[in-house]
Amino acid sequence: MRVVIPYTDRDPKSRLAPMLSEAERRAFARAMLCDVVETVRRAGHDPELLVPEPIDGANTDTAIDDVSTTVDDRALTPAVDAAFDRIGEDVPELGIVMADLPLAAPTALRRLAAIGGDVAIAPGRGGGTNALVVRDPAFPADYHGASYRDHREAAVTAGLSVGVVDSMRLATDIDDPADLAEVLLHGEGRSHEWLVDAGAVLDTADVLLGVRLGSRGQVVRRIAFRLPV
Amino acid sequence: MRVVIPYTDRDPKSRLAPMLSEAERRAFARAMLCDVVETVRRAGHDPELLVPEPIDGANTDTAIDDVSTTVDDRALTPAVDAAFDRIGEDVPELGIVMADLPLAAPTALRRLAAIGGDVAIAPGRGGGTNALVVRDPAFPADYHGASYRDHREAAVTAGLSVGVVDSMRLATDIDDPADLAEVLLHGEGRSHEWLVDAGAVLDTADVLLGVRLGSRGQVVRRIAFRLPV
Repeated sequence: MRVVIPYTDRDPKSRLAPMLSEAERRAFARAMLCDVVETVRRAGHDPELLVPEPIDGANTDTAIDDVSTTVDDRALTPAVDAAFDRIGEDVPELGIVMADLPLAAPTALRRLAAIGGDVAIAPGRGGGTNALVVRDPAFPADYHGASYRDHREAAVTAGLSVGVVDSMRLATDIDDPADLAEVLLHGEGRSHEWLVDAGAVLDTADVLLGVRLGSRGQVVRRIAFRLPV
Repeated sequence: MRVVIPYTDRDPKSRLAPMLSEAERRAFARAMLCDVVETVRRAGHDPELLVPEPIDGANTDTAIDDVSTTVDDRALTPAVDAAFDRIGEDVPELGIVMADLPLAAPTALRRLAAIGGDVAIAPGRGGGTNALVVRDPAFPADYHGASYRDHREAAVTAGLSVGVVDSMRLATDIDDPADLAEVLLHGEGRSHEWLVDAGAVLDTADVLLGVRLGSRGQVVRRIAFRLPV
């Protein structure tokens, strides 16, 4: 299956600004993209980048230098909708996987792809749509607002069947500083390595779980979250 | 399999105080407990409450009025450790499932139980341990701090094998106001019904996803979160 991965280098991961500089956010976003591309390949699928403009330095990274790329400068929703137009006899199904899912594992993608129905959805935390497998071009993309709910409703309206995969790894998109703790706890790829190299450590003093970013033992940036227990 | 569900009525879900009064939090916590008990039953398991003191009004709710109950007034970790002491020839395995998992589904619990190894873990968001299946009494409970990481390390130290289930439904414990949006989006049981009856609605104006609690159309409490997309 062809799996489209939307990505942009424009001010990526802006909500990580309390923890990471713009250059760091760009490097971290690229590391997450590489993890997703490799996961798609390891799951036996064929990755394709969907970008608003050609990405600089794509050829410098072995993980993405030979990935098919579609350039579409429209917003995410119309760009993905245009990709759905390919679905038909020659293309029975198309995957859409967000680029900020460094915890995504081949097993999770295979479980998503194995779900029947005209549309299979991996919901993201907070009502987003982190991954889709679409088997009918009538399904309309809608990434604005609570897109998980909207995608489900749109499928029902169009008379399409919907399956949902129950995956923490696919539900965990990395947007906020708190999400970095998930990468430290469960990640294994380049994103995890990048964070560790940047000096990020889990900080579990007292009943707080945090991420501490520093270098040479010096605490430079620290953010803490109360533990759920 | 016997599945132990730790629960307390003492100041439950204190981090929901910005949204819910103490009486409301108690009622909502009880609704979540009932959902978990029913899910354990529907998965074919045998639920047991683990409480620090007998819970008032337990006999008034049909979902939990005939559930086996163990009273242990110690903290969570020693109380659960004592339960592990039962594991042996007559009790080959024991489940521990937190009471604040209203999205838990029988399928997710069955997937957890089907994972091999001496210990099967369902990690919670933020490094917690939301559910366990333990097959060796040498496994030490440790619910303090980043318990998911600590439980994994403790198993390795004890020479025990560990399996991890990838489930968004088991990972989603309800602690913070933001978590209520997950119940509205994915819940189906009493907790969802209780929230809807309390006037909670998803509020997706602009690019914010929030929960609005009100009555008779009047907005009384509102909390908003930026959407991940």
